Amino acid sequence: MPVGTQATVKGLTQQALAEDLGVAILLANTYHLYLRPGHELIRQLGGLHRFMSWPNAILTDSGGFQVFSLSGLRKVDEHGVIFQSHLNGDQHTFTPESTVDVQLAFGSDILMVLDECPEYPVSHEYARQSMHRTVRWARQANQHFRSRVAESPGCHALFPIVQGSMFPDLRRECASALLDLDSDGYAIGGLSVGEPRPLSLEAVEATEGILPRSKPRYAMGVGMPAELAEYVARGVDMMDCVLPSRNARNGYLFTSEGRVIIKHNRYKDDPRPLDERCRCYTCSSYSRAYLRHLFQSGEILYAVLATWHNLRRYLDIMREIRHAIISGSFPEYLKCVRPASEDAG
Amino acid sequence: MPVGTQATVKGLTQQALAEDLGVAILLANTYHLYLRPGHELIRQLGGLHRFMSWPNAILTDSGGFQVFSLSGLRKVDEHGVIFQSHLNGDQHTFTPESTVDVQLAFGSDILMVLDECPEYPVSHEYARQSMHRTVRWARQANQHFRSRVAESPGCHALFPIVQGSMFPDLRRECASALLDLDSDGYAIGGLSVGEPRPLSLEAVEATEGILPRSKPRYAMGVGMPAELAEYVARGVDMMDCVLPSRNARNGYLFTSEGRVIIKHNRYKDDPRPLDERCRCYTCSSYSRAYLRHLFQSGEILYAVLATWHNLRRYLDIMREIRHAIISGSFPEYLKCVRPASEDAG
Repeated sequence: MPVGTQATVKGLTQQALAEDLGVAILLANTYHLYLRPGHELIRQLGGLHRFMSWPNAILTDSGGFQVFSLSGLRKVDEHGVIFQSHLNGDQHTFTPESTVDVQLAFGSDILMVLDECPEYPVSHEYARQSMHRTVRWARQANQHFRSRVAESPGCHALFPIVQGSMFPDLRRECASALLDLDSDGYAIGGLSVGEPRPLSLEAVEATEGILPRSKPRYAMGVGMPAELAEYVARGVDMMDCVLPSRNARNGYLFTSEGRVIIKHNRYKDDPRPLDERCRCYTCSSYSRAYLRHLFQSGEILYAVLATWHNLRRYLDIMREIRHAIISGSFPEYLKCVRPASEDAG
Repeated sequence: MPVGTQATVKGLTQQALAEDLGVAILLANTYHLYLRPGHELIRQLGGLHRFMSWPNAILTDSGGFQVFSLSGLRKVDEHGVIFQSHLNGDQHTFTPESTVDVQLAFGSDILMVLDECPEYPVSHEYARQSMHRTVRWARQANQHFRSRVAESPGCHALFPIVQGSMFPDLRRECASALLDLDSDGYAIGGLSVGEPRPLSLEAVEATEGILPRSKPRYAMGVGMPAELAEYVARGVDMMDCVLPSRNARNGYLFTSEGRVIIKHNRYKDDPRPLDERCRCYTCSSYSRAYLRHLFQSGEILYAVLATWHNLRRYLDIMREIRHAIISGSFPEYLKCVRPASEDAG
């Protein structure tokens, strides 16, 4: 899922995303859109799909991750989390119930429960208490969601989030407790918080046998191109990550031959497309030399073309993985991409 | 002509420009592209059309205007102009001959001669001397251009530039002198240098009866939407201006009902398209409320959508003018848009 933090995937039109890239679902950030322009305004304008003119599915996070990473002074208690807006310092409160309401105001297709996302590292004891609160919040959010949807039915799903820091026992305990909610899907959170990469994979592995196979599993905030197949191999169906878009803007481009750092002098007079095997608009129309020129000149078109390509690369990898699974060749696919990971990382 | 300073119209893909907006010709800046990435590199990569993947015509200015407005220490003498790069302080020289060579390396369809573009105001005496130098440079450039094209023929045109500050007698003298060159077209330069608007129109009027009717006339660096018909009424066929694109990025949007300053609070919950009569991608897909949200959030997509619309608005005005001329109703059209100018300015 491409990340559309502020109801826009930075640099791309909704037309490019839906029609050219074939994006079926994107992620938007509850925290950002709650603060600006506000969920009531978005509701009044017909919901997030209509507001941003997006024809396909939208998943919104609960805002928890941003509260913990972006906002100033914050206070967590059993009730929820009190935080200061990073925009103007205003004080706000998120509760398990209120974040469901905010996301229903958006009209999100997939809503996430409010969770506490601990930083890394934390003690086992802190992680345990925090995980238990996340489970209690998930129950409250789920109950509130079911009563809201019963009142005014719509086609929404609410995913609870498995936490437990990097402790496999807590991850397993959390996943088991969340099973009771019989949710439409399950998310695995608390990843990409600064932990070494093998630990992220272990945290996902821990709950592989517990989460129901028939429900989608969403690993939040991952990963590098070479890691996508690794997560899928551990049962993950959905991922979101700012890497393809953020790295694009910073000059890091992902290709089928590995990473291209576009500012490097070697691309100055390189007439080849960024990735000769890629069929995206950028690779069909422009050379590395032109992309480098745009990057060096700080041009907006650089961000547009680079994001376009990097998203295509991620989506192509996921398409390859899907084809491999369908044709029964995923184990071979995984073997085949694993050695390449070293270069492509 | 949209302005593509660094071989890109800021924020728009070449596909959007050529296919969606129907841009038949755009302007690129010799000064900028000479400094970065350099004309030899562009030649080596197949010329500017291929470098930037642009299927239609390109006009390049001579660099004179930027040398006078952007570069540090500069020295003009009969030979040409010595200047320091605004990027790194390196010293460079432009001569009437060298700027032709640079633009031929680009493969520009329309080249401009090196001129001196005096600031405003200047004395009649300074303007006279400067204008005479511009005429001498135009002769040199023209001679060099003809011999270069005779060596390796291609489909290029070189336009000399009428100068003379805001003095009608100097403007007329300059235009008469340039007639000898029998050029494919004539530009009127030295406008938009800080002079009151009526003086720009007078400067154009001064040469209306002198420049050949059968050749295109290009007023450089103008104008506001309401002025376009005024220039056409004074015999102008071509114009370029950064206003539609620069103003777009700064939040000033031109509509058929006048100007919209998108940050204004009144657009916060405005579900209407920016311009209900406009058929551009932006107006077909997005609301004022969404555009305002993108602007307030500093999002790249704002620049993309705003530029898309403003360029469409300019091109629509020029299309209206062409239709009015062809149908013989231009005088009525002019009367009709004149009162509106007050609001739309």
